[in-house]
Amino acid sequence: MSHELRAVDWTGSSLALIDQTVLPHRTETVDVRDVDTLIDAVQRLVVRGAPAIGAAGAYGVAIALAQGEREGWTTDEVRAAVARIREARPTAVNLMVCVDRVMTRFDEGLDAVLEEAAAVQREDVEANRAMGAHGADWLIKRLGVDRPLRVLTHCNTGALATAGWGTALGVIRELHTRGLLEVVYADETRPLLQGSRLTAWELVQEGIPHYVQADGAAAGTILRGEVDAAIVGADRIAANGDTANKVGTVGVALACAYAEVPFLVAAPTTTVDLSTATGDDIHIELRGEDEVLEWSGMRTAPAASRGHNPAFDVTPGRLVTGLVTERGVLEVSAGELPGDRLK
Amino acid sequence: MSHELRAVDWTGSSLALIDQTVLPHRTETVDVRDVDTLIDAVQRLVVRGAPAIGAAGAYGVAIALAQGEREGWTTDEVRAAVARIREARPTAVNLMVCVDRVMTRFDEGLDAVLEEAAAVQREDVEANRAMGAHGADWLIKRLGVDRPLRVLTHCNTGALATAGWGTALGVIRELHTRGLLEVVYADETRPLLQGSRLTAWELVQEGIPHYVQADGAAAGTILRGEVDAAIVGADRIAANGDTANKVGTVGVALACAYAEVPFLVAAPTTTVDLSTATGDDIHIELRGEDEVLEWSGMRTAPAASRGHNPAFDVTPGRLVTGLVTERGVLEVSAGELPGDRLK
Repeated sequence: MSHELRAVDWTGSSLALIDQTVLPHRTETVDVRDVDTLIDAVQRLVVRGAPAIGAAGAYGVAIALAQGEREGWTTDEVRAAVARIREARPTAVNLMVCVDRVMTRFDEGLDAVLEEAAAVQREDVEANRAMGAHGADWLIKRLGVDRPLRVLTHCNTGALATAGWGTALGVIRELHTRGLLEVVYADETRPLLQGSRLTAWELVQEGIPHYVQADGAAAGTILRGEVDAAIVGADRIAANGDTANKVGTVGVALACAYAEVPFLVAAPTTTVDLSTATGDDIHIELRGEDEVLEWSGMRTAPAASRGHNPAFDVTPGRLVTGLVTERGVLEVSAGELPGDRLK
Repeated sequence: MSHELRAVDWTGSSLALIDQTVLPHRTETVDVRDVDTLIDAVQRLVVRGAPAIGAAGAYGVAIALAQGEREGWTTDEVRAAVARIREARPTAVNLMVCVDRVMTRFDEGLDAVLEEAAAVQREDVEANRAMGAHGADWLIKRLGVDRPLRVLTHCNTGALATAGWGTALGVIRELHTRGLLEVVYADETRPLLQGSRLTAWELVQEGIPHYVQADGAAAGTILRGEVDAAIVGADRIAANGDTANKVGTVGVALACAYAEVPFLVAAPTTTVDLSTATGDDIHIELRGEDEVLEWSGMRTAPAASRGHNPAFDVTPGRLVTGLVTERGVLEVSAGELPGDRLK
């Protein structure tokens, strides 16, 4: 993969989003010039991954401003459109944080807004690079091994999920760059297969050896001693370290705790929400039942069955061995809580 | 569902297997009259579930004998064919146990073999009924509640997986019959969706309220307090209580242990293999990569990706709150080990 892969890219007059619903079979781009198209893209997961949604939201302010100018909206109408973007998905805090940051320059006009959105995007890439180095350093020191590592990951946290490079997958890429990666176990991540479709696609581009496995296989793979560490991303991290991430994450964390394998969460500090005290306060998005009952539009379950489809789960902070941010690694399960250390 | 549903049924001259690969969309039967067809049906999962495979293997001895008579095989050739049936799948011990039991009457000829196979089948249904009662009694006493229960299960353990009625699903059906079941969370059970296709189909037939969920959702559903108990089946249980079952089971067990929710394994004593000391001695079947890389024959992962597809995992006995057999409930995590109590 070119390291310039951009899931979210400002073209000068529109926002180009790689359509992540059709990967790995087709590489297509959705060109976003209006607020409704952006919200639809966020909700349909054309763009997904907390930092990537944050970057899309940042540019969304510019899209709302530009559309408002074209269509003669009042300032209040533009602000209302921005508020709709901000609420397009409820769990990832990055969307709200990034929109709010860009809105601090709303009154300065479109150029200032675009400048701030570009800064959001640039800083996310820089944060990812820093996380990669911190995470790799910490793992090597913690594990005290001089052989390439076998790492498990869940969902997609690479360049596609961020402004570039990746969070958890950024740590994995850094290990690979240093010659310290043996293989990645990529959980397929049902129901939408972000692991099988997106993470595997990125790993192929990077030439990183990997196995795709069913989500149910993760715990057994860890308990059998086939994994040196698990690394995942996050959608929102509470002050006590409780971490909302893609559904299935807490199962990985429980298996790591049982097997005494390090469980790392890699996320920029923009994903840490100190106003959220614990995971109990995080709203978990329930998505449509059909995502779990159908496959590519074909029903797999009986017609009379109902589906239960939480998009995220919450991993208790006491199961998080290390929280990797651009500032370093907090050993959460050992008592280094975000609420104390990231004020 | 008629309670006479038979996944494995001797017609008088052949073995009728409900084709579980095409449920819930079509209800078709495979008519088995020769050894190769039987082995193919076992390996393609036309028939699956440890007790159902055991019953199919028991009748398989009769099929080998009858085919041998038709085709003029020597006794050694018939025995070699039976040995192939016995090894058709490696993890479930019931297949070996049931074939070996019927083989004790091999020298008496076809009628004696058929009589013994029918006894295997009849006794499995009786064991399932007894397990249902023991499991329901134990749960109600343990939980001390007088409201209907919310139960999670993984894979399919119903009439389709057994000679009739069901093991874990038999306990669930018993709770439902007593008016003590609120809802079932059925893990879809990737990669082959036995939960979504088969368990949900049986639950629809029984009129039991249920949600299908992604396997990755199980741990979060348990940790959020939405489940009163989890009940699963088993393919082989070691003397120390370590339990091989469908991949994903140990993740359910870990979540139950963390949330202090009872985790039950329901299996007939034929599934307990006292000659296996611990789970480390259980051979875990690795199935084809395509099961996880494809969907209905369509590739979902990138062409260059590899798949890791263990069909089972091992749940440590210390995570098994209760082992429900036809003889009663052993509280394994509290020290009641099969090796001590089931000699």
